[in-house]
Amino acid sequence: MLDWQEISQSLSHSLNRDISLRTPSSVRGGCINQAWKTHDQNGELYFIKSNTPSRLSMFEAEAEGLQAIENSQAIRSPKVFTTQQQATASYIVMEYIAMQSCSNMILLGQQLAAMHKQKRSRFGWHRDNTIGATPQSNQQHQDWVTFWCKERLVFQLNLAKHNGLSNKQYEDGLKLANNVSVFFDSYSPVASLLHGDLWGGNCSQDLTGNPVIYDPAVYFGDRETDLAMMELFGGFSSSCFDSYAEHYPIDEGYSTRKTLYNLYHILNHFNLFGGGYGTQAHGMIHRLLAEL
Amino acid sequence: MLDWQEISQSLSHSLNRDISLRTPSSVRGGCINQAWKTHDQNGELYFIKSNTPSRLSMFEAEAEGLQAIENSQAIRSPKVFTTQQQATASYIVMEYIAMQSCSNMILLGQQLAAMHKQKRSRFGWHRDNTIGATPQSNQQHQDWVTFWCKERLVFQLNLAKHNGLSNKQYEDGLKLANNVSVFFDSYSPVASLLHGDLWGGNCSQDLTGNPVIYDPAVYFGDRETDLAMMELFGGFSSSCFDSYAEHYPIDEGYSTRKTLYNLYHILNHFNLFGGGYGTQAHGMIHRLLAEL
Repeated sequence: MLDWQEISQSLSHSLNRDISLRTPSSVRGGCINQAWKTHDQNGELYFIKSNTPSRLSMFEAEAEGLQAIENSQAIRSPKVFTTQQQATASYIVMEYIAMQSCSNMILLGQQLAAMHKQKRSRFGWHRDNTIGATPQSNQQHQDWVTFWCKERLVFQLNLAKHNGLSNKQYEDGLKLANNVSVFFDSYSPVASLLHGDLWGGNCSQDLTGNPVIYDPAVYFGDRETDLAMMELFGGFSSSCFDSYAEHYPIDEGYSTRKTLYNLYHILNHFNLFGGGYGTQAHGMIHRLLAEL
Repeated sequence: MLDWQEISQSLSHSLNRDISLRTPSSVRGGCINQAWKTHDQNGELYFIKSNTPSRLSMFEAEAEGLQAIENSQAIRSPKVFTTQQQATASYIVMEYIAMQSCSNMILLGQQLAAMHKQKRSRFGWHRDNTIGATPQSNQQHQDWVTFWCKERLVFQLNLAKHNGLSNKQYEDGLKLANNVSVFFDSYSPVASLLHGDLWGGNCSQDLTGNPVIYDPAVYFGDRETDLAMMELFGGFSSSCFDSYAEHYPIDEGYSTRKTLYNLYHILNHFNLFGGGYGTQAHGMIHRLLAEL
């Protein structure tokens, strides 16, 4: 049960003007959270997601991720106004953007390329966040292969072992992790600002045709990981990838590393949903081991 | 809040013996429901999913779907013991099957083929159910093309229009619906018992290596729809499809119809998650219209 009056007060404080929210209506918010749309006395629209009180840090990480994307000035993402914890719920309030399915794929490719040109000296982020409902560890490293093995592949492998991945599958995964550097013999990724969870459900466009991305799992890493995930779950046309490559060329080794990078998300699917994803992950591990 | 004592009573009644459930532990139950594992005084294990009271019919449909799969004696699915409604929740209790990732893909292909050989004279089912959290209409028809257009494609297109699919995308979808018979010029599907929601998260195997399928959206329809979805979201190896085809050969027009059939699930993803799935659906519609 959200205390809507308290949300109005919190918003008033954040925005430094008097906000009185009207009765909210429930809207789609994905698998994890409850979501509402509402407006204030001036007709300004707000989008609110809520969860249990313990999920406040998830919303705080989301808020900082959206802020990082906004700061890049490369692609639109919703502005965040406040995140708070109440007695029985935590919540995040952001601007409500009226959206439609993204059709402006050429512009999207261009804007993603611009976002990926935001760089840092180290891989990772200043805080952990979540990928789906799974914790995502972002401890910073100077070296991408170390980061990706430790914070990504081995992290999910350990979770998967706990969730029932067989010993053989786990051991093969560790063998891969120990040999990942092979895929970087002639390619040195830079630490780019990433969305981190760019599947088709996390991208739309506003009513004037500007692409909008949301629900990020932001960190600084190899931009190929965003591209690989975009291919994995669909929702993006070839004109998006062509446009991206025109503005920020892609290394030819990407086609092999794509499988490596998507292994993270398939292992995460195994950890979230179980079932056949363990077999799919093992198939990917096998294909990659054959490349060694 | 589930009343666990009432569940013990309901189980005792269903199983016709005294059942006293121990303290349950929370387990993963997918996106939609809460889930628990527990055992009775004899150590028998149970898997329980719960949701709001109004979702009772969803659990009843699931129970009947699992029963239909069990009756086929082709492939293992969890036995259902009871579904009930309480003041603040509805629930389903089934056997708890200790599971591991499905590796026995050859046996899985064979058993799916056997399940698909269970036939009816009409397409559809005796009741509606859900696909994800979306209602799935199963009104029965003599003709597959009529069934698939009306109960599947146009049903999701209408929902998608309500959820923000553009007029152009919607109109193209209706144009496709009016011409779907082209894809059946030399192929007459029979009404096979289908799982209906066979993505990688809905298939595992028990500890003795028997494949297990669950969370179905059962109806009688073209078996190619199950195969297409298995390819769409991954989790099944090529040896599964090879084994299937050996036991129940696949028509060569499947490779085109696969896109048609998966359009249903991509539209459903748009309706569930929004975002880029509208564009992906429109791309599929375009490709199919080009085949006319």
